[in-house]
Amino acid sequence: MADNLYSEFKEHSVAEFFKKNRQMLGFSSKIRSLTTAVHEYITNSLDACEEHGILPEVFVEIEQLGEDHYKVTVEDNGPGLPKKLVGKAFGQMLAGTKFHRYIQQRGQQGIGATGATLYSQVTTGKPVKVRTSMGNGKIYECTLVVDTKQNAPKIESEHEFNGAYRGTRVEAEFKDVNYNKSEYGAFEYIRRTAMANPHAKITFIDPLKEKIVFDRVSDKIPERPRAVLPHPLGVATDDLITMARITQARKLSSFLQQEFSRVSSAKIDELRQLVPTIDMGKNPHALQWEEAEAITKAFKTMRWIAPEMTALRPIGAGYVEKSLQNVVKPEFVAVIERPPKVFRGGVPFLMEAAIVYGGAAGKPAEEGRKAEILRFANRAPLLFDAGGCALHNVVKNVDWNRYGVKDFENQPISVFLHMVSVHIPYTSAGKQAVADEDEILKEAHFAVMEVARHLQRHLSGVRRKGESERKRKEFDKYIPFTAAAIAKLTGKEPMTMEDLSKLASKEGKVLEEKLAKIVNERFHEVIEETDEEELESNGGNGESEKVESGGGEDA
Amino acid sequence: MADNLYSEFKEHSVAEFFKKNRQMLGFSSKIRSLTTAVHEYITNSLDACEEHGILPEVFVEIEQLGEDHYKVTVEDNGPGLPKKLVGKAFGQMLAGTKFHRYIQQRGQQGIGATGATLYSQVTTGKPVKVRTSMGNGKIYECTLVVDTKQNAPKIESEHEFNGAYRGTRVEAEFKDVNYNKSEYGAFEYIRRTAMANPHAKITFIDPLKEKIVFDRVSDKIPERPRAVLPHPLGVATDDLITMARITQARKLSSFLQQEFSRVSSAKIDELRQLVPTIDMGKNPHALQWEEAEAITKAFKTMRWIAPEMTALRPIGAGYVEKSLQNVVKPEFVAVIERPPKVFRGGVPFLMEAAIVYGGAAGKPAEEGRKAEILRFANRAPLLFDAGGCALHNVVKNVDWNRYGVKDFENQPISVFLHMVSVHIPYTSAGKQAVADEDEILKEAHFAVMEVARHLQRHLSGVRRKGESERKRKEFDKYIPFTAAAIAKLTGKEPMTMEDLSKLASKEGKVLEEKLAKIVNERFHEVIEETDEEELESNGGNGESEKVESGGGEDA
Repeated sequence: MADNLYSEFKEHSVAEFFKKNRQMLGFSSKIRSLTTAVHEYITNSLDACEEHGILPEVFVEIEQLGEDHYKVTVEDNGPGLPKKLVGKAFGQMLAGTKFHRYIQQRGQQGIGATGATLYSQVTTGKPVKVRTSMGNGKIYECTLVVDTKQNAPKIESEHEFNGAYRGTRVEAEFKDVNYNKSEYGAFEYIRRTAMANPHAKITFIDPLKEKIVFDRVSDKIPERPRAVLPHPLGVATDDLITMARITQARKLSSFLQQEFSRVSSAKIDELRQLVPTIDMGKNPHALQWEEAEAITKAFKTMRWIAPEMTALRPIGAGYVEKSLQNVVKPEFVAVIERPPKVFRGGVPFLMEAAIVYGGAAGKPAEEGRKAEILRFANRAPLLFDAGGCALHNVVKNVDWNRYGVKDFENQPISVFLHMVSVHIPYTSAGKQAVADEDEILKEAHFAVMEVARHLQRHLSGVRRKGESERKRKEFDKYIPFTAAAIAKLTGKEPMTMEDLSKLASKEGKVLEEKLAKIVNERFHEVIEETDEEELESNGGNGESEKVESGGGEDA
Repeated sequence: MADNLYSEFKEHSVAEFFKKNRQMLGFSSKIRSLTTAVHEYITNSLDACEEHGILPEVFVEIEQLGEDHYKVTVEDNGPGLPKKLVGKAFGQMLAGTKFHRYIQQRGQQGIGATGATLYSQVTTGKPVKVRTSMGNGKIYECTLVVDTKQNAPKIESEHEFNGAYRGTRVEAEFKDVNYNKSEYGAFEYIRRTAMANPHAKITFIDPLKEKIVFDRVSDKIPERPRAVLPHPLGVATDDLITMARITQARKLSSFLQQEFSRVSSAKIDELRQLVPTIDMGKNPHALQWEEAEAITKAFKTMRWIAPEMTALRPIGAGYVEKSLQNVVKPEFVAVIERPPKVFRGGVPFLMEAAIVYGGAAGKPAEEGRKAEILRFANRAPLLFDAGGCALHNVVKNVDWNRYGVKDFENQPISVFLHMVSVHIPYTSAGKQAVADEDEILKEAHFAVMEVARHLQRHLSGVRRKGESERKRKEFDKYIPFTAAAIAKLTGKEPMTMEDLSKLASKEGKVLEEKLAKIVNERFHEVIEETDEEELESNGGNGESEKVESGGGEDA
């Protein structure tokens, strides 16, 4: 019986796995599938441009060919691909430059674009078409599919010709997909990409042939991201062993200094004190698990300079604010950037956060607007899997009441949260949710609290101003009467309210103006929180006296 | 510049990918990582037993070896593994029997157990130890790790000896993990596994050496799951092409009849009418994309018998109820099973749902109890990634008010939802959340609505009974006075209330008893919903008259 069973034992390629489980790559619902394809192509284009110091110009077109049938074209002015790598880039999974580098980039898996090819071929039976040139006068064009059994590209046709072009253009047809302008659609994906990439120009032609240009708001070519050495804080024993096995260094001490960030010879001396039985002169290839474990433990007890900031490229508070101002014309914006930290394996990361309130902040609801969470990872928008995303859940779990925001869900608020790192720990190959790593949760929480406090100060200012304004208006109503009454006290006869009212508009004028002035001055200075009841109970009686005595104190 | 970049172009193994992205396998937080390892081993054991018609006895031990350092042992009485496959089963990803079969099973990827080996080796530097025997008197034992570069097992030591044993035992150490009894811990995982597998006996020894036995409640060996042919409804063009390429059938018509479920020769005739240009006698190897597409489209317009139920093995309403009764001693339970449906690619599935109310239903909260959602897929509990899970979100999005449940979150309610299928579309290799496939969402929604309606009937019964009871009590208070008043009407003098009250307990007795009888009878028959205000406004005046006239009508 068991033999029957095991005769079926087989090995499968990663492409077969993702073909069967394409929902893990983000190819699940119709809307999401189209957005995923657009997302994979655009992130590749932006990564390639950024790495080569090119100001990106990305052209995206989505054409409708039939019901649930669309064609996506993405073209960039990037560096282009060498002919021999086109197949691997679009037709083989886990192949590429991105996987092993310790560098901030949007893609990091070498799966995405090939996943799109796979989805195109399984829904339409057609290959994708790629045209690329490295600007050397030669243009290479081919059509290809993925051979899923082998996880290898299958070039169906190719030709090369002369021409002046630099960049990469991919055209792919998809069925069982759909386009709309919802918060999950390709349009929103592109809009948010523009928001997080102020240096990129993105031209989008939608299925109705409407052309939308997201122009760059910055002409500054962003600094190229740099690969960095891992930080000793949080480095795992296994990482240390793996690195020790392949290092060129001859001694353990030089290995640690060369292959880790922030390890100086002074730090090696400190380490020697902590793990005296380990010979720092030994060949790192001979490093044993127990020794490596002792070193990583010791690392955690030592004081270290923060990881190198230079590896991380946040968008920058100024640009975030500009983007948000442009899009939502809010009443209030606050943007903050947290200092870099490390998570698991010494991976440096930082959080950029913003909060936007009022105006067109939040998202439209049946009545008014609702709170919205704008998540980004390495400048790529995260639209899906919110419920499983650390960034989303941190925002949701903030006790917004504490920050003066009642009923958070139904407020015109956008919370912007951007994680920047040399490695984003996505929960799934679909790259739409960040995993619950303790250090990430903590930093995200701090980031949101920080912008929430800014909003709180703003709101309590507004509230105090509003209350003060209301009080002043109440007082204003009594000013004429008070003025008239005072006029009377200074020599006239008792009057009816009508007379008083009449008088207020004539003889009381001078005093009235003086009183108004006193009230105004007072209410620009004395700002105190007054609760609703107090205000209401004061509304109807005795206001004029209060003003008088108040005016008296100020004078 | 581009050449520099592309000189780094490399290919990577799926094991390297999941080593770097182990959070995608469920190895993220400490608690979750331990639960994931236990989950992978237990599902393998149960799958193996089920497939071989063995009543499973699974032994699980979790020992604490140090801070965040545990050893997990899982042993089963399953069929055992042939020696040559042990390495592949525990040390190679995407290898195994599970991946390509169209059959209901817990595991379906051939990744899980190897993922646990990987996590063990990267956190402890140690191999896992496997002992297995197919009951042939020979026991094979080895220790192994994953060679991540190659995605291949590396057997570190092995030996074979004689002995009477059948089954598989795996021991693995993990660091950076933790154990607790929370809803995310290994204990809860085992408890829920027992709930969904009434035929399994699971013995668990926890880190405090406490032994907990989850005994089987059924001795019935469950029918072996069967692989099925795909159903024509919803089959994708690509699947059709792939199957046509490898079929043994010589003609398109016989290919369709042999390789799909529910395709009879009558159905082929029907198909011929719908796609007259396609030659049903042609060699299926020559099937073109356009033809395959036309056939799958035609399939969708035809009427089909539902997919074969025989492939799907729900737990069964009786067992689900028994499990839930045992665990929570509730006030109310309802269990339903939906008929089988298909999703994407003709994959048959069905939903089993239950709702439990009152008693120890729900989960403990600071005050009282909170609603709880118990998710299962092919009898395996889903504890994590709830926010991204179709099953969870369906329950959350039900308008519980419509079913008489106000403030769902804070009620003593457990909603049990079990998806059974030959393929579960997990959102991630961690297998803890079901993707948003339209048909799944729909069926899950129907299933929850159905049990919700049962609860509604129960609750409105309880409420009506409660309201009726209240009314009757109100009326009761007036019965003595009414009785006395009637006594008076039948001949006595006007009295004070005091006299009346006194009288009520003496001379009114006979009438009082009669009235009470009428009231009781009436309130067992006339059950009508009365809102609070109506009840309250009637409470103080005129009750006695009402009772009288009511009594009169009934009489």
